[in-house]
Amino acid sequence: MSLGPEDRLHTWLRQRLRRAGFDRLGDDGAILPAAGPWAVTQDHQIENVHFSAELDPRLVARRLLAVNLSDLAAMGARPAFAFLALSCPPDFDARRFLESFIAAGQRFGVELAGGDLARNDKITTVLTLLGTLPPGGDWLTRSNARPDDRLWLAGAVGLSALGRCLLESGARVAARSVDLSAIGELTRREEQLGRRAVRCHLAPRPQLEVGWWLGSQQRAAAIDISDGLAIDLRRLCRESRVGALIQVESLPIPKEFISLCRKVGRPELDLVLGGGEDYALLFSIPASASPPRSLRCTPIGAVTADPRVLMSLGELVRPLPEAGWDHFIL
Amino acid sequence: MSLGPEDRLHTWLRQRLRRAGFDRLGDDGAILPAAGPWAVTQDHQIENVHFSAELDPRLVARRLLAVNLSDLAAMGARPAFAFLALSCPPDFDARRFLESFIAAGQRFGVELAGGDLARNDKITTVLTLLGTLPPGGDWLTRSNARPDDRLWLAGAVGLSALGRCLLESGARVAARSVDLSAIGELTRREEQLGRRAVRCHLAPRPQLEVGWWLGSQQRAAAIDISDGLAIDLRRLCRESRVGALIQVESLPIPKEFISLCRKVGRPELDLVLGGGEDYALLFSIPASASPPRSLRCTPIGAVTADPRVLMSLGELVRPLPEAGWDHFIL
Repeated sequence: MSLGPEDRLHTWLRQRLRRAGFDRLGDDGAILPAAGPWAVTQDHQIENVHFSAELDPRLVARRLLAVNLSDLAAMGARPAFAFLALSCPPDFDARRFLESFIAAGQRFGVELAGGDLARNDKITTVLTLLGTLPPGGDWLTRSNARPDDRLWLAGAVGLSALGRCLLESGARVAARSVDLSAIGELTRREEQLGRRAVRCHLAPRPQLEVGWWLGSQQRAAAIDISDGLAIDLRRLCRESRVGALIQVESLPIPKEFISLCRKVGRPELDLVLGGGEDYALLFSIPASASPPRSLRCTPIGAVTADPRVLMSLGELVRPLPEAGWDHFIL
Repeated sequence: MSLGPEDRLHTWLRQRLRRAGFDRLGDDGAILPAAGPWAVTQDHQIENVHFSAELDPRLVARRLLAVNLSDLAAMGARPAFAFLALSCPPDFDARRFLESFIAAGQRFGVELAGGDLARNDKITTVLTLLGTLPPGGDWLTRSNARPDDRLWLAGAVGLSALGRCLLESGARVAARSVDLSAIGELTRREEQLGRRAVRCHLAPRPQLEVGWWLGSQQRAAAIDISDGLAIDLRRLCRESRVGALIQVESLPIPKEFISLCRKVGRPELDLVLGGGEDYALLFSIPASASPPRSLRCTPIGAVTADPRVLMSLGELVRPLPEAGWDHFIL
């Protein structure tokens, strides 16, 4: 399996760091090995890379927080403290950004505990987030999947990418509403899903409760889908030294999703498998276990001893296409 | 005393955060309030803001580490874990950067424990560094200065700014040597100091040992000089609700420093008071105490009950000029 340049760099880096004693770098964050325990995650949000330059600073802040919370969700951690690095041009409304960040943080139990501000040509934000272990919980890792486990999804895949395409096709965000008139004639359900897609893209919802439930299970593997289902499923499989077979029919794809994909001229499977920025949680648990219905998870396939990562579509079984979002390729 | 926009933003932010329960935000980093204890610092290094675009990635990495270590020094902390956010154009030699970072980290007991990589137009780096409390030590703060304390400096002030001016005037760095031929005829001592200045600018030396010694004292206040002696002394005074009087004659300014300043066309006091990026440690301790000679500290003045921040030059006493480095002004 070929890795993109970013993955290769990660792999190389991990080899160096394993030697130094840290063995959790394949996961979404690091567990500090002493006195805590603390889970630490770190993620960027950069203008014109992760979000458009016109985006309201309030939404930039919420997005930055959400993508980091999603990493903590994939570790089974409870969010605690944030360290925020913000570099931006002097005309960026940093205060609006910070206000929104603090308010959104409070909703998730996150306290902004420090950071650094600097000047930059483009808005560049980095969040370092520390989380604790919930009582009775355990850290989640990517390496705990075993053959015959069932694979599950918490959250939607492709919806964020559809939202991005709608914005690129002229959808507009004003105050709290999403204006889809540029997309053309839409049914009421298409409008509803389109608005949900844009919101899901701008302010994804981290799957923290699902992470905590998984941490209370006997065995679970989890990863948050930031680079697309295909890439992140491969990562989970690689860390666990297993393969997977997913049923495309079982993926949660409403028919309005398909019709909206046509309107923005993108094949729906491209977005579902490789759209990226979903911040859904992909996880595996023993086939005997099932998440509570209130967590709204969807079974999408199984872990296999065969190391290939496959998808079935009706009778057809084929390798899962390597579509995805790699910052060093795109 | 008027604050620059960056300080105003900090003040505003701190007011919001004090309410949330964190009270260490005036210091160079945060102490996590539970289970540790850990000191956490975070600092940027950005292309064309903190370093020139041509700088060897190895030196960028060492500089990023050093400026963060300097914050830990000002807290009396022992460095432990680093979380590194690197965003850069695809042609940046990230591997060279990371290698150098890891190697430099090992020399200071820093383990790279996580991070995030992304694409950006300009090399933008953020380091989050966690440090522990040395045995028998205590955290240092900016708010512990009291009238009649003596003010001390560990490290040089103005030297880094001189190094920056020399680089702007044509000094070149190749492998491990500094070429000053573009600066014109220099005495041997000027050459030595010029090279030291360039090295001090590119790879400042954090004053960790001084921070640990201060942490073992009954009472001490400390701040690292990142934005210039004048700005950072004012910060220390503001946090401690005191004033200060520094003797310009006692500042460590060799005569070669003055002659090199003339060659690059900058008044020496501008660089000494406001040059910034010194990463020296400014601290106050009771007048009865003295740091060990091995730490090479210089007494430069006294803390006063009078809230003004003054400097004396011979018979003349005047307010310390508000020269300094403020990212949101420059």
